[in-house]
Amino acid sequence: MITLHTWTTPNGRKVSIMLEELGIAYDVNAVNLGKNAQFAPEFLAISPNNKIPAITDLLPDGSSLSVFESGAILTYLAEKHGLFLDASGPGRYKQLEWLNWQVGGLGPMLGQLGFFEKFSKEKSELASRRFATEADRLLMVMDAALSRNQYLGGDTYSIADIAAYPWVVTANTFLADVLSAQIAAKPALQDWLARVGARPAVQRGMAIPAV
Amino acid sequence: MITLHTWTTPNGRKVSIMLEELGIAYDVNAVNLGKNAQFAPEFLAISPNNKIPAITDLLPDGSSLSVFESGAILTYLAEKHGLFLDASGPGRYKQLEWLNWQVGGLGPMLGQLGFFEKFSKEKSELASRRFATEADRLLMVMDAALSRNQYLGGDTYSIADIAAYPWVVTANTFLADVLSAQIAAKPALQDWLARVGARPAVQRGMAIPAV
Repeated sequence: MITLHTWTTPNGRKVSIMLEELGIAYDVNAVNLGKNAQFAPEFLAISPNNKIPAITDLLPDGSSLSVFESGAILTYLAEKHGLFLDASGPGRYKQLEWLNWQVGGLGPMLGQLGFFEKFSKEKSELASRRFATEADRLLMVMDAALSRNQYLGGDTYSIADIAAYPWVVTANTFLADVLSAQIAAKPALQDWLARVGARPAVQRGMAIPAV
Repeated sequence: MITLHTWTTPNGRKVSIMLEELGIAYDVNAVNLGKNAQFAPEFLAISPNNKIPAITDLLPDGSSLSVFESGAILTYLAEKHGLFLDASGPGRYKQLEWLNWQVGGLGPMLGQLGFFEKFSKEKSELASRRFATEADRLLMVMDAALSRNQYLGGDTYSIADIAAYPWVVTANTFLADVLSAQIAAKPALQDWLARVGARPAVQRGMAIPAV
């Protein structure tokens, strides 16, 4: 049985969406970031970077495997179940390039925008401008990719889409005053948001953890 | 034959190190970022996010595969050659979690520190402080991991180390005034820098492209 250690953030939702898509049973451990639960020794033992999400899984030999970093968790679950990531061939690397694009670009840049625009009491016009510009550029790149293919990695829904979806929703809600007009002006991105958002597993995953 | 599209940056060096470690023949296309070569239409066709590195590879069936995003390229090369990433088992996911940690954390945070400290004429004390603090935290996490194991993903040198090495070198050189004292105070990180830096393939890869 898998335990998902998560909280109500886009990186956490990537994994709850994936687990819902796989349709497997799992436990949820809500790691309350507002109470600094990510610094508890028992959590650091499985996630030494003090970030959610992380998973623990019981292996067939009775040992336990923990995995942190959402991109690694998505890859682990996809390879374990043979779903949402091609096992080989060119399509696999198109899916992995967009997964890495989300992990290394879209996520960190929207995360920094959220910090400078919303979380920080101190402000920096330079930083706000930098991350708003970079976020819009990344959303343009995504819109262009989605005007060529239905999904980020090609014709098939994959862990690249699962990784990007909760972050684009965050851009469109939490960061709406900065980004929703830009998102509204990107038709392929709009269509993809509707297409992915219509999936029942995505809707269920976006509601986890219930706190 | 693989062509590596790259420039003299840490993300580019990840892939030149990997290609040198594999000992395979490859061509280098130097994409001069100082001349905005990353926006040329022929480069955008293979790297639509206008970033280096990217590779193009000729497949056995005569078709060409392009891959962008350094994390995806390292995974592609590791899986193609069966080297520097376990094919299955728990070790594979320890290697992938640290690869993702580099791609989503160490790289972007050091990159932003470089922007606010070095590249930007305008300054933000808030942003400089934020990214210096986060960079030191990440290096502490890395030092702790390397005090448990010789390499990031465990006992074996892997693409996680290849991804992290050029960025830690950058922290220790380009960003030395901010970070070299912190790096000097982290013994396991120091040992790892020496251990990885002693590899001839790493030394060759760090000198590519020659411009």
